[in-house]
Amino acid sequence: MPDTRKLKYDTSALRTLTAEDLDALEIGAGILGTGGGGNPYMGKLLALEALKAGYKMQILATDAIESDALCMSIGGIGAPVVGVERLREGREGLRCLRAMEDLIRTPIDAIVCEEIGGANSMNPLVTGALGGLPVLDCDGMGRAFPEMQMTTFSIYGHSSTPSVMCDLHGNAVIFSHAVSEVGHERMARACVVAQGGAAMLATAPMQAHYVHQYGIPKSYTKAIALGEAVIKARKEQEDPIAAVCDLEGGRRIFTGKITDLKRHLRGGFAIGDLELSGFDDCSGQTASVAIQNEFLIFKRNGKVEVTVPDLIVLLDVDTGYPITTEMLRYGQRVAVVAIPAPELLRSSRALEVVGPSAFGYPEITFSPLPTASRKAA
Amino acid sequence: MPDTRKLKYDTSALRTLTAEDLDALEIGAGILGTGGGGNPYMGKLLALEALKAGYKMQILATDAIESDALCMSIGGIGAPVVGVERLREGREGLRCLRAMEDLIRTPIDAIVCEEIGGANSMNPLVTGALGGLPVLDCDGMGRAFPEMQMTTFSIYGHSSTPSVMCDLHGNAVIFSHAVSEVGHERMARACVVAQGGAAMLATAPMQAHYVHQYGIPKSYTKAIALGEAVIKARKEQEDPIAAVCDLEGGRRIFTGKITDLKRHLRGGFAIGDLELSGFDDCSGQTASVAIQNEFLIFKRNGKVEVTVPDLIVLLDVDTGYPITTEMLRYGQRVAVVAIPAPELLRSSRALEVVGPSAFGYPEITFSPLPTASRKAA
Repeated sequence: MPDTRKLKYDTSALRTLTAEDLDALEIGAGILGTGGGGNPYMGKLLALEALKAGYKMQILATDAIESDALCMSIGGIGAPVVGVERLREGREGLRCLRAMEDLIRTPIDAIVCEEIGGANSMNPLVTGALGGLPVLDCDGMGRAFPEMQMTTFSIYGHSSTPSVMCDLHGNAVIFSHAVSEVGHERMARACVVAQGGAAMLATAPMQAHYVHQYGIPKSYTKAIALGEAVIKARKEQEDPIAAVCDLEGGRRIFTGKITDLKRHLRGGFAIGDLELSGFDDCSGQTASVAIQNEFLIFKRNGKVEVTVPDLIVLLDVDTGYPITTEMLRYGQRVAVVAIPAPELLRSSRALEVVGPSAFGYPEITFSPLPTASRKAA
Repeated sequence: MPDTRKLKYDTSALRTLTAEDLDALEIGAGILGTGGGGNPYMGKLLALEALKAGYKMQILATDAIESDALCMSIGGIGAPVVGVERLREGREGLRCLRAMEDLIRTPIDAIVCEEIGGANSMNPLVTGALGGLPVLDCDGMGRAFPEMQMTTFSIYGHSSTPSVMCDLHGNAVIFSHAVSEVGHERMARACVVAQGGAAMLATAPMQAHYVHQYGIPKSYTKAIALGEAVIKARKEQEDPIAAVCDLEGGRRIFTGKITDLKRHLRGGFAIGDLELSGFDDCSGQTASVAIQNEFLIFKRNGKVEVTVPDLIVLLDVDTGYPITTEMLRYGQRVAVVAIPAPELLRSSRALEVVGPSAFGYPEITFSPLPTASRKAA
C-alpha cells in the first residue's frame, strides 16, 4: 500500500517524550492502574528499547488533530501475572497497525491508548514510535479495567470490531464482527488464553472528534505529572502519598499491613482478596480490598467505603510507589488512596458496564467520591 | 464484488443429490463418523430444508474440475453434544464463503468437505447449495477426527490459514495467520467455546490438483453407498452389518452390551470410555472403547486390538444404524466393526498427527488392519 498519508496535525503541537518522562509515566500509570493493566515496568523496558533504537515517542492533544483523522486504539490483552512472566516481543502492536491498515485499506493517522493504567500506557507509545504515528493524549479508561468492553469508547457507542489481535508467536486474528462488545471480549480473551496468555489488540478505528469527545482527557500528561510528583516528593523528602492525593483530588483512606492475601488465575484473570490490619491513625481498624485484576472494592471494618469505578490505589507506605496486584506480598505496609473516577465513568450508562454490579456485586451501589479538590494536570 | 467466475468444470459431470441420497448419506456418514463429527441427523435437517427451498446440492469428482480451480474446505467446529442441543442457524457456511471471497478477493470455484463423518458431511452440501457451488467428492479425513489439524490437507502441507469462522449469533472471525496447524485449532476452538460451542469454519482455499492428490477420494459416493447398503439389507431382511463390512473391507470384531459408560465435556470435547460385555459368539468376553469425540481404541479382554486412525464403528446390533458418542446409552446392544483407514492416513507423516500417540497414547503402536477385501465404492 503506497503511503498516501497527509499529516492531519501540526507537528509543532507534538510533545516528544524522554526516558525521564517514561520513568515518571511508569509510576503514574502504576497509580492509575489501581493494581492492574499489566506491570508498567515491563512495558517501560520495551519503550526504552524503542527510544534507544532512535524511534520517537510523541503525544498530541486530542484537539490538536483534524476531527476526521483516523485513530486506532490499542492495548495488551491477557492476565497481569502472565505479562510479568512473558515479555512481549515488541512488534505485536506494529503488526496490528499494519494489519488494520491493510484490512480497512486506509492509513491510520494516530494511535490511541485503550487503558492508561499499567503496561497498557506504554504499549501504544511503542506502537506509535515504530509506526511513525503520534499517540493522542487521552485513553479509554482513565485507569485500568479488566475487560475490553469497559472503555469509554465502547460504553458511548463505538463498536470495537473489526479488530486485529497479534501475539509474539506470530498468530494474527481479525475479529470481523462480534454481536456485542462483551462477545468480542469473550472471543479475544479465549484466543489469548489458548495461545499462552499475552497479545496486542487494536480495535476498529475512530474519528478524532469521537476520541476527543469520549476519551478520558490528558491521560498521558496526567500520568507523567503524577509520577513526577512522586519522584520530586521523594527527592525533597516530602510525603509522596500526599503529593499524589493533592494532584488527583484523592484521599489517603487507610494505612495498614497486608495480613492475608488470596489470589488465583481464572480464565486469564487474577482474582483475589486482601486483608489489611491498620496502623498509625488506622490502628485497631481492619480493611479489605477485592481484586479482579484491579482493586475493586474497599471495605473498612467490613463496611463498603469505596468502589469501582472510583480508583482504589495501593502505594508503598514509605516510597509512595504503586503496587500492582501481582506484586502484593504478605506483610507489605501500604497506604490506600481513593481517587474520584473521571466523569465519563460515572454516568448511568457507564456504571452499567464498570459499576460494582458489572463485577458481580449487584448488592453494592456506587457512591461517588467527592471531586471538588482535583487539580488540573 | 462482480461475479467474474468462469465455470471450471463441465456441468454434465455434476451429480445432483436427492432427499433419498441424503437419507443414505446420513447413515453412511454416521458409520464413517466413528461416533463423532456431529450428529448427521441434525445436519440432514438443514440440508433437507435447503433442498425443499429449491437449492441444488451437487457433487463433482475431484478429477472433473480444472486443476487450478479454487476449492474451499469447510466444516463445523464444536463439541458433538453441543451440536445436538443447538441447531445451526443454517447460513453460517455461506457467510464463511462470502467472507473468504471478500478476504482473498477471488471467487471460490468449489466447496470441499473437511470431514465426511457425521454432520460435517452435510454442512458443505448446504454451503455449496446456498452458494451455487458444487462439492467435490472427497474429504480431508475419510472419517471423523476431533481436531482441525487432522485433515490430510493439513498433514500433507497445506496451511489452513487464513481461515474464516462464523457462528449462528453473527460473530465472524478471521484467523489471518497461525504459527502452526495446532495453534490454529487451539485458537478457533477456544473462540467457539467462548461463544457457546458451535460455528462453521472455512480454511484457506486449495487448488483442485492438491485436493485431488491429498483428499480422501470419493467420500460422498462411498458414504451414500454405505447408507444404501444398510437400507437395502434391512428391506431385504439381510444382515446390514455384513453389508457394511462387505463394502468397506471391514470386520465385525465384537458383539456385546454396554455395561459401563463414562462421558464428560472437557474444553469442547466429549471424552469418555465405554465397557462392553459380549454375547453371541463373543459370550464370556469383555471389551472397551476409548472415546475422544470419536471411538479411538478398541480393547478385547484388556488387550489393544484396533486403534485410530483405523475406523472403530459401533452399530446397533439389530438395525445396523451407526451410534454416535452422544447417543450411547447403558444397556445398548451393539456390534463393533473395524474398517481399515484410507492409505493417506497410514503414512508415518499422518500417524504423527492422527496415530494413537497424537491422542495421548504414546505406549500404543498402530497396527494396521488388513485392507485386501475392500470393495470399490
